[in-house]
Amino acid sequence: MDLPYSRIKGGVCAARGFLGSAISCGIKDPKSDRLDLSLIYSDRECLSAGMFTQNRVKAAPVRISQIHLRSKKVRAIITNSGNANACTGPDGMQDARNMTKETARHLNLAQKEVAVCSTGVIGLPMPMMRIEPHYEALVNGLEDKKGNDVAKSIITSDTHEKEFAISFEIGGKRIRIGGCAKGAGMINPNMATMLCFITTDANVGQKCLDLAVAQAVENTFNRITIDGDTSTNDSVIVLANGAADNKLMRRGSKECGDFCHAMEFVMNRLAKAIVRDGERVTKFVKLHVKGARNDLDAKKVAQAVANSSLVKASWNGEDPNWGRIIHAVGYSGASIKEEFINISYGSKLACEGGLQGKTNPEVLRNIVSKPEFEITIDLGIATGTHCIYASDLSPEYVEFNRSEYAYWKQAKRDGLV
Amino acid sequence: MDLPYSRIKGGVCAARGFLGSAISCGIKDPKSDRLDLSLIYSDRECLSAGMFTQNRVKAAPVRISQIHLRSKKVRAIITNSGNANACTGPDGMQDARNMTKETARHLNLAQKEVAVCSTGVIGLPMPMMRIEPHYEALVNGLEDKKGNDVAKSIITSDTHEKEFAISFEIGGKRIRIGGCAKGAGMINPNMATMLCFITTDANVGQKCLDLAVAQAVENTFNRITIDGDTSTNDSVIVLANGAADNKLMRRGSKECGDFCHAMEFVMNRLAKAIVRDGERVTKFVKLHVKGARNDLDAKKVAQAVANSSLVKASWNGEDPNWGRIIHAVGYSGASIKEEFINISYGSKLACEGGLQGKTNPEVLRNIVSKPEFEITIDLGIATGTHCIYASDLSPEYVEFNRSEYAYWKQAKRDGLV
Repeated sequence: MDLPYSRIKGGVCAARGFLGSAISCGIKDPKSDRLDLSLIYSDRECLSAGMFTQNRVKAAPVRISQIHLRSKKVRAIITNSGNANACTGPDGMQDARNMTKETARHLNLAQKEVAVCSTGVIGLPMPMMRIEPHYEALVNGLEDKKGNDVAKSIITSDTHEKEFAISFEIGGKRIRIGGCAKGAGMINPNMATMLCFITTDANVGQKCLDLAVAQAVENTFNRITIDGDTSTNDSVIVLANGAADNKLMRRGSKECGDFCHAMEFVMNRLAKAIVRDGERVTKFVKLHVKGARNDLDAKKVAQAVANSSLVKASWNGEDPNWGRIIHAVGYSGASIKEEFINISYGSKLACEGGLQGKTNPEVLRNIVSKPEFEITIDLGIATGTHCIYASDLSPEYVEFNRSEYAYWKQAKRDGLV
Repeated sequence: MDLPYSRIKGGVCAARGFLGSAISCGIKDPKSDRLDLSLIYSDRECLSAGMFTQNRVKAAPVRISQIHLRSKKVRAIITNSGNANACTGPDGMQDARNMTKETARHLNLAQKEVAVCSTGVIGLPMPMMRIEPHYEALVNGLEDKKGNDVAKSIITSDTHEKEFAISFEIGGKRIRIGGCAKGAGMINPNMATMLCFITTDANVGQKCLDLAVAQAVENTFNRITIDGDTSTNDSVIVLANGAADNKLMRRGSKECGDFCHAMEFVMNRLAKAIVRDGERVTKFVKLHVKGARNDLDAKKVAQAVANSSLVKASWNGEDPNWGRIIHAVGYSGASIKEEFINISYGSKLACEGGLQGKTNPEVLRNIVSKPEFEITIDLGIATGTHCIYASDLSPEYVEFNRSEYAYWKQAKRDGLV
């Protein structure tokens, strides 16, 4: 279908009234000039919404941002990469609080108007001495052209920054939604976090904004998986400042429905970009489960298959190995009847009624050899569906994730441990 | 403590009255003489018990053996390796049935006295033409010295056979328990199965035997994990023929308790041997969870940690990365309080109250660098415990499991697909 969106530049600063700033403060690597500290700021008041990790071990910045977002008035986000400020106890909480306090002071805001995010290694104290000297430079550097700098500053093991922005019309007014993201906790566990920041100049009611964010996250970031690990720091924060001057969109209106759709469109692009840029990922797989007893069963199947080391290794090996898929279906916990299950690679049936299908394996192998393909698992029972974007598991992923010991050594040099 | 067991030779043929036989029929590889078809047989009537995979996709031989074991009279087991006879539909069921029927005919037994097991690739038809000519040779080859041949014939991607046998005294009579096993489904997914066969000459009541097997499996084979995948074929079958002529052991007696303990001792050795010989495994980790709200919570934590790709990669990298462990604890679903959690490598605290402990990381690193070590996670809440034997995840594991496509090609040469 023709989507009514124009892709625009500017990322998280594409929407009117949003400024960004990013510097290198040496947390990622004291010897390089990689950007690792950033600020996002709205030049006017905002409504805000956030979604955070379900992990019961929550990083300090997640706890602080959750508290500040209760005010719904957050209009600035300070973020560091290189240290997750997770498992850092009361000191870590104080560090995260101080980051919002100092940012608020330099921006002349209330502390609860500032959110804080951290991404990086878990369990090491925050090197605050690297952050403290830079609040003024961060604030002085705020510009509406620095969306890309912010996008670069939040990445860790990602190979490139991820940003996306659109404009579209509602009620005769042009609205912009833009954002940036970094590798999912599940993808970039080395760095322990997925972060996504979205800004919009839409004039939107709080309930419509909350709905848009909840729906979009459920359908996008909650449907990607790389390695099945849920991080301690995953955060999605959305700011809306009303600069587009459209008529206020309230929940239940057609305009709110359109806004929700646009929000999901932006998050969908960022979520897929995260999977495609997963650590040492070579395959992007759209895994579609249908015919389940209900949607929850479909989700169980999709998650079991997408997180099976064996299934993922077979994708890496370009092997159309439906036996491993049905085996994961079998232990997913969903209600199944083996003899009703069909599994397709692309449009070709690999498994029909629980048995080897008639498609020539060479045809299937050609499909799995592509960098992106779709797998459909039809349980043949009822109408439950679920869709997940998944990746393969490569020997290089394991190699990459074997050791973070270098971080301990750096922390020792910094006198933190 | 001093255990009252003597280790003896003979494996699955160590107990009196049990014979074994194994041949090469070319399922594993038509061009090699690797043993891949075997028979275990008791020269007198048996009581029997079995435990099978919880996967809802069950291989045909699992279904048939479950039915035959209802009679509790199984006294022979025919096993092939190289093809799992899983996802093979009605034809596969007929093939498994035929394997028991022909075996029974050649042994002059009732069909329900024969169990059947298969291990190998999933989803390809059974190459019955390789099995059918060999029933007579199998039966004629039965000997009480061939436990080792049987142990060799059931392995697939295992690097060596696994067998263990003990003798011990109960009521003045010497009883023997012996068995063999092959790599767990979760370990040897390429070959899709863990199998374990145990024989004993104990004179034991059915209820005592059932109890011994259920308890021992729960405490051994259900506590090992390599990659979190539960196979379609996992089977543990135990035969008891009473040849030791001891006084019948009934459930509830001290003798039955001793027998249960001995059964667990044998299965424990075989289960650990499976983990140690996991595909491309370099570490054997005893993961002990304690202080949980209850045992179920402790199990959730143990399983989340033992199956986290990131935790396992860190073990492979010899990195004492407790951050990854606590992160898996956080998403395990168990009730936790981050600030009560202690994590030790060996006897050294790595994480204390949710924070970096005082142990020098170099000391921890030395522990993780050993081929076998113990990790204790103390949740600090109550008294729930669970223990799992786990392995690392190596780049070589992924490399090894990338493709089984060669099997398709062989099946094509055989005219099976």
